[in-house]
Order: sequence, then C-alpha cells, then structure tokens
Amino acid sequence: MAATTEVEKKNLEEEAEQVVNPWEVSSKGKIDYDKLIDRFGCQKLDDALISRLERLTSRTPHVFLRRRVFFAHRDFAEILDAYERGDKFYLYTGRGPSSESLHLGHLIPFMFTKYLQDVFKVPLVIQLTDDEKFFWKNLTVEECRRLARENAKDIIACGFDISKTFIFSDFNYVGGSFYKNMCEVASRVTYNQAVGIFGFAGEDHIGKVSFPPVQAVPSFPSSFPHLFSGKENLRCLIPCAIDQDPYFRMTRDVAPRMGFNKPALIESLFFPALQVFLCCKTCYFIKLIKSY
Amino acid sequence: MAATTEVEKKNLEEEAEQVVNPWEVSSKGKIDYDKLIDRFGCQKLDDALISRLERLTSRTPHVFLRRRVFFAHRDFAEILDAYERGDKFYLYTGRGPSSESLHLGHLIPFMFTKYLQDVFKVPLVIQLTDDEKFFWKNLTVEECRRLARENAKDIIACGFDISKTFIFSDFNYVGGSFYKNMCEVASRVTYNQAVGIFGFAGEDHIGKVSFPPVQAVPSFPSSFPHLFSGKENLRCLIPCAIDQDPYFRMTRDVAPRMGFNKPALIESLFFPALQVFLCCKTCYFIKLIKSY
Repeated sequence: MAATTEVEKKNLEEEAEQVVNPWEVSSKGKIDYDKLIDRFGCQKLDDALISRLERLTSRTPHVFLRRRVFFAHRDFAEILDAYERGDKFYLYTGRGPSSESLHLGHLIPFMFTKYLQDVFKVPLVIQLTDDEKFFWKNLTVEECRRLARENAKDIIACGFDISKTFIFSDFNYVGGSFYKNMCEVASRVTYNQAVGIFGFAGEDHIGKVSFPPVQAVPSFPSSFPHLFSGKENLRCLIPCAIDQDPYFRMTRDVAPRMGFNKPALIESLFFPALQVFLCCKTCYFIKLIKSY
Repeated sequence: MAATTEVEKKNLEEEAEQVVNPWEVSSKGKIDYDKLIDRFGCQKLDDALISRLERLTSRTPHVFLRRRVFFAHRDFAEILDAYERGDKFYLYTGRGPSSESLHLGHLIPFMFTKYLQDVFKVPLVIQLTDDEKFFWKNLTVEECRRLARENAKDIIACGFDISKTFIFSDFNYVGGSFYKNMCEVASRVTYNQAVGIFGFAGEDHIGKVSFPPVQAVPSFPSSFPHLFSGKENLRCLIPCAIDQDPYFRMTRDVAPRMGFNKPALIESLFFPALQVFLCCKTCYFIKLIKSY
C-alpha cells in the first residue's frame, strides 16, 4: 500500500478545495477531474482507447464515452486485450440504496453497464449495498433492505440480459464464499491503511471500518461460486462513478496478494447539477442529452 | 460504554502484572482472579448462588462449580430467576479452532455446558470461530475450516442433546439474519471504544476490528431464525473462560440499545498448567480431577 500513501498525501493537500470520496462530493468551484485522476492515480480515457473499443465491438461507442461522462479508467486496455484474445471477463457494478427510486444520476452506471453487457455479451453482478447505507445513513436494516428491493426494480428496468445478470443484497447474500473473501481482504488491510484511504476517525463506528472488504470482494469470481465455479481467473471490469475509486484502489492492492486478478475500472464523472426549469421527466432527459 | 472506560483504566494499570484478553493470557506470578473480577466488573460466584442452583435443579452442582473452576458470572441469578418462573433461555458457547483436537482445557466449557443443558433442558448454540482463527493465526481459510470440522467431532463427543444443539462455523453460517445483527452491533461501537476494550493498534488489520460483532451476535436469538423465530426475548446464558469477557462486556453494553436482553455469563478460570509426568491420557485425567 506504499504507493497509496504518496497519493494520499496529495489527497490531504487538495482536500480543502474539493472533497471526493464514496460518501461526499463537494467543491468550491467546478470539480477538477484532471486533478482527481492525478490524485487517485487512475488513467484518462483517451480517443485511441475509444476508437479501439469501437473497432473491437463493431458498435458506435456509447454516448457516455463519446461525451466523456466515463472519462477515466484502470486497466481498461487490458480488458480489451483479453476480449481480443477471446478471454472471458465479467462486469460488476452496484448501488447503495439510499432512496426509494433511482434518479438519472444513479442510472448512469447502469445505462452504461447495459451497453457494456450488450457489446461484450458478458455476465454481470450487481451489488446492492444495503449494509453500507445502514452504516452511513440513519436508517433501519429493514428500511435499507426495502430500498434495495425498490431500487432493484428500477435497475431491472434498464433491460439487462436476465440470463447473465445476478443482482444481490449484501444482507441476503453475504456469507459462505463471499464472507471468506471478505476476511481474506480484511486480513490484508491495516487500520492505518484504511484511515489513509477512507479517512476514518476514532469516533467512527467499527461498521465503517468493516465495510470496505464487502465492496471489494465482488471483484473476485470466487465470491460467486454458483456463477463462476472453476473460473477463478476470470477478469472483472467495474463501471462506476469516480468517487468509488478508493474502494477499488484498496481492492487492486490486495488482489494479487490473494492470488486474484486486479479488477479493471471504467469511471464516470458526476451527474451535472441541472440549472434549468424541468416541466416533465421527458424534458429533463432531453435537456440532459442536449447539454452534452 | 462510559462504565467500561473506568474499568479499562484499571486494566491498563494492571496490564504490566498480568495480561488476560481473548488472545493472550500471561502473568508474572499466579493469575489473580479476584483482581480480574474487579477489573472486568463481573461478579464472584458465591455459595448462596450455587446452593440455589442445586435446589432449583435437584442435582448436585457440577464439580466445576463445587471446585470453583467456574468462579465468576454476570446475571446468572437472573437466569435462575427466569428458570424458577418457567421462562425459557438458551445457552451459547464456542470454540476458536486453532488445533486439530481439543485438550482438556478446551473441554472445560463444553463439559460444563453439557451439564447445564442436562439440568435445564435448554437449547444450545455452539459457534466455531474459524474466521477469528484466520484473523489471528497464520492459517489459511481452508485450514481454519478443516480445524473447525475436526473440533466439531470432539465437541459432539461430549454428548449434547442433538435435538437441542446447533453447531455452526462462522465461514458457513454468517449471512442473512446473523450478518444483519453483526451490522447492528458494529454500528453501535466506535473504533475508540473497540481500542479501549480490545487494545487494537493502528497496525492491526481491519479484520480484527471487524470481528467482535461476530462473537457478539450469537447472544441474540434473532441471529438464529430457524431456531428461535418469534422468541426474540429469549434470554441467553454463556458459559466461557473469563478471557472471553471483553467480547461480552461489549455485547451487554450494546444489547439494550438494540432492544435485546443482555446475555448472562458464567465464567471459568484457566486450566492449570500441569507439572506432573503424564504416562497416558487416563492418568492425565485422574491427576486433573485429584488436583481439585
């Protein structure tokens, strides 16, 4: 985790200007995404990579790529290498269910993930982190589970390939192989490292400290024995907003020490705040598309 | 957790003389059990309580009570009150599987728990903390699970009522209702409190910080919906060695804030180191019994 420490120093210096972590996104001015890329240590998604994706999939790249809503990545080129060789991979994305229904910002990773599943024809796991919302929001377990079920309906409506998609709630699914991998990850991350990555304080409850391994392990195929048995080398690609990067920086650090591949990432910017009057949901969508 | 803080101050002062926690027991001289009672804030098991137990159960108290191997408790009188009123309770004990087979010291809580199950005719849950051993010992998950299975055989050989006994491995069982309760506990304990109780350091991995809720929640009937559905008020009695007290101090602090009963405890001293030559397993046992 030594490399992370350097990265985290910069993090602290810039923290005054803009705060971006899995639980808070705020900035004095506009979010400086180039600074974020630099601070997190991921790569910019460039024209060459998008052209290569177009060539390999014989499909116009998704509007979120053309407009650079997904603008950063980790090892996305390696996923394309794997695809070109005919090697398999799978997708992992998720949702922290904190409200009853998904708004357009929430839908961005899912709309994009649907495109990835369409063009690559790969399996997809979708994690509903009802436990995370329980730890961070003032909600009961039952309320978090209810929101997870509600959100699942909106996610299903995106039209994923049902023969290739597994949606699960942490409260329902954690245990067995998933819990084993959680323990493997947890045993490789010190409290000091977790503080460096996530900024925990002594007054934070231990649920927060315990959570990062829960979000890490869907990156490893062995967490899903009913889906990927005997395919422990299957690579994983994670489409997500860039605020989730800290979880996967930790995951990528730990993965090789567990004998697993590092997950690859493709990362979006945040949904822009809309300044316009919205007369109906359709206008809202049209204005959004126009603004790209 | 304010009461604990006071207790923990004494803890630190006496730490130099004797160290007793779930992972280490050492002392410059003999273990001073009275000091331990004072430091942990539990109660001494006195003649009156043992006589009352004898009266209520119409059975000679177990030799471990007569010889004060079990010497301390928390709320044991309330368990007897409940029994006298005809209220139900259940037993919870466990084992961290760190070796292939159990020695006599390991068997003490199980032999005593068998007696408690015999005289009270109550359900019993036995937790095999294979995850704890994974976090604290240099063993693989698979090795910890194997040791858990091996240890289960020795535990079964104690002769528990199979219609009333549930033995489970954390790696197999954690999830669902159990995981929900873990999250409920974790959200009520800060990292600073955990440091006060367990003495974690920043260099410790986060698996250690995550573990105490795992050992806490078998104290709550709702962690076992297939056993205790609709009996959320069922009281729990935990026979264990006194080094496990910190886990349950934390559990008892959290329980009422979750709307559950505090578990009661009945706590043993440590198995005395034997100084004699042991010609065979039978002699070993005879010498042990004689030494009481």
